[in-house]
Amino acid sequence: MRSSEKRRWFLGIDGGGSKTTAAVCGADGRIAALAAGEGSNPLSRPWPEVEKTLRALIRDCLRQAGAAAQEVEGLFFGLAGADRPQVQTMIVNAFQAEWGERLQIDNDAVAALYSGTWGGPGIVLIAGTGSIACALTADGSRHRVGGWGYLVGDEGSGFDLGRQAVAAVLRAFDGRGEATALTGMLVSHYGVDTPDQLIARLYGSPNPRRELAGAAILVDRAAAAGDAVAGRLVRQAAASLLELAETCLAKAGERLPVVLAGGLMAADTMLRRAVLELARFEAVVPAAPPVTGCLAAALMRAGRPLDAAVRKNLCRFHPEGEANGGELV
Amino acid sequence: MRSSEKRRWFLGIDGGGSKTTAAVCGADGRIAALAAGEGSNPLSRPWPEVEKTLRALIRDCLRQAGAAAQEVEGLFFGLAGADRPQVQTMIVNAFQAEWGERLQIDNDAVAALYSGTWGGPGIVLIAGTGSIACALTADGSRHRVGGWGYLVGDEGSGFDLGRQAVAAVLRAFDGRGEATALTGMLVSHYGVDTPDQLIARLYGSPNPRRELAGAAILVDRAAAAGDAVAGRLVRQAAASLLELAETCLAKAGERLPVVLAGGLMAADTMLRRAVLELARFEAVVPAAPPVTGCLAAALMRAGRPLDAAVRKNLCRFHPEGEANGGELV
Repeated sequence: MRSSEKRRWFLGIDGGGSKTTAAVCGADGRIAALAAGEGSNPLSRPWPEVEKTLRALIRDCLRQAGAAAQEVEGLFFGLAGADRPQVQTMIVNAFQAEWGERLQIDNDAVAALYSGTWGGPGIVLIAGTGSIACALTADGSRHRVGGWGYLVGDEGSGFDLGRQAVAAVLRAFDGRGEATALTGMLVSHYGVDTPDQLIARLYGSPNPRRELAGAAILVDRAAAAGDAVAGRLVRQAAASLLELAETCLAKAGERLPVVLAGGLMAADTMLRRAVLELARFEAVVPAAPPVTGCLAAALMRAGRPLDAAVRKNLCRFHPEGEANGGELV
Repeated sequence: MRSSEKRRWFLGIDGGGSKTTAAVCGADGRIAALAAGEGSNPLSRPWPEVEKTLRALIRDCLRQAGAAAQEVEGLFFGLAGADRPQVQTMIVNAFQAEWGERLQIDNDAVAALYSGTWGGPGIVLIAGTGSIACALTADGSRHRVGGWGYLVGDEGSGFDLGRQAVAAVLRAFDGRGEATALTGMLVSHYGVDTPDQLIARLYGSPNPRRELAGAAILVDRAAAAGDAVAGRLVRQAAASLLELAETCLAKAGERLPVVLAGGLMAADTMLRRAVLELARFEAVVPAAPPVTGCLAAALMRAGRPLDAAVRKNLCRFHPEGEANGGELV
C-alpha cells in the first residue's frame, strides 16, 4: 500500500432503534476503531439527540483510529427509517455541508444485507424485536415483505415469540393449553409468583413490547431442552420467517441469497437452525456484524475494491457481543 | 301494589371501561329511568372522576324517576375491576356511609350474567373489545378463563378480530396472503389510500387498541358477504370463544347455561351465529342489557322476588342502542 493510502479511511455507522454502532477501517479493510452508542432511529427519538449520538460516535471513532475527518474517503450511514425521504433529508441537512459527496445514506436493512453479500444483491431476512424481509436486486430495485410492527405484523420476531410464550403460559394456567416448561421460566424471568401476576407486570411496564421480546431467548432455550410447546412456537416462527423470505424472493423474481440478520439470527439459536434446515433458498449466515456491512458499503460506494483480502480484514475484528454475543433481540 | 310499595326503588349501575349505564326500577320491575355516562373502570380512570360519573348518574336517574335517595331499597354496582379488593374498598369508602346495607358491589361480568340468568348460576361469555368467560356456580364459587388483555390474550375479541383483519390485509398487500374484500373496507374505514398507510394511521392513534377493535364489525360484514378470509377469521374467533366457555364449564364442574354478552354477542352477528351453531352447551342470548342484570341483582339482594311478571317488566324497556343497537364493540 502506498503511504498516502495509509491515510485514507472509511466510516460505517449502523443505526437501529435501540443501539448505534460505528466503525472505521482503512482501504485494506483493517478495522481501526469501533464505538457504540444509543439508538438513532429518528422516528422514535428526537432528531437533535440522534444527531448528537451520530456526531459523538464519529468523533470517538476518528480519535481511536488517529484519523482526521478530511482523511475519510467515505461515510456510510445505515440507519433505521432512512428509506423515508424526511429522514434522508434530516441526515443530509445535518451532514452534507461537512461531508459532501463522501456521504452515503441507506436503510439499516441494507447494512445487514451487505454484511452477508459484500455489496452484492440479495435478500436480508431480519428477525430481531421485529421481523421483515427486504430485497435489493441486481438491477437495483427493492422489495419488502412484512415489518408491519407488533400490533399487526412482525410474525416470527422476538416480540411475537415472547408474546406467544406468555399466551401459552396463561393458556396452561387457564386450563386451555397444555403444561409447559415456559411457565417456570417466565415466572422466574419476570420475577412474579404465579402466571396471572404476569399481567400486572407486563401491562405495567413502560415498554411491554421490549419486555415481551426479552422472553424470546427463553422460548429458544425451552425448545432446545425439549419442551413441546416451545418447540411448536419456534417452528411456527421459523415458518413465518421462511414465508417472509420466500414471498420476497418471489417479488424479486430472481434467485438471490438470503442473508439472516437480527438478534434472533445472529446466534446459533433453535430458530436459526430451523430456518437453515427448512430453507429452500441459499441462506447466508454473515461472518460479520451489520456495521461491517456499512464499512463494505462505504468502501464500495467510494469505488474501492472489496476483494478477498479486504473482506478477510473486515471479518477479522469481532468485538465481544457484536456478531454472536449477548442478548438475542 | 301497596301505595308504600310505589315509593320503593332499585338502582342498577353497569360500569365498563368506556361507558357506564344506570337504571332505576320499582319493586315490580318497571323501569322508570335510564342514563349513560363515561367509563367507570377505576383501573383505567382516576377514581375521583369515576366517583363523579357514578354520582351524576345516580342523581340523574333519581331525578328522572322522581325518586328520593331514601326511597331506594337496593343499589347494585356492577363495575369492571370490582373483583379487586382495592377497587371494592374505593367504592365502599365513597358510598357506604350514605347507602349502608343497601349497597351491593360486584363485577360487571356478574351484571352481564344476571341479564341472562336473573340471578341464577351460570357462565357469562363476554366478547367485546376483550374476551373472557366467568362462571358463578350454584354453591357460589367463581372461575375465570381468558381476559388477559390485548397483548397476550383476548382471543376471539373485537380487538383480536380487528387486528387479524388488518394483518390479513397487509399479508395480501405483501403477497403473502390471499386477496380479501377486507382490503377495500379497511382502507375506506380508516380513511387511507393504500394498505401500507394503515401503519401510520394505527400506530399514530392515541388508542390503537380501540381503533383496531372498531374494525371488528367490518370483518363480520365481509364474512356475511361471503369473503373467505373474513369467514375464516370469524370461525377462528368463534372457536376461541367456544374454547373459553368450554374450559370455564369444565372448571365449574357442573352443567350451567352460558350467557352470551359483550358488543360482539349483543347483535345478530355472524360470530354469534357461529357460536350458537357450534355450542355444545346451553347458550343464552339475554333479552335485556347488562344494566338490567344490575337491577335484577339489586332486587334479588334486597330479598325481592324476580318472578315472571317482574322479569317481563324489566325486559320491556329497551332504549335504542342498549341491547341490540349501534356499534358492535
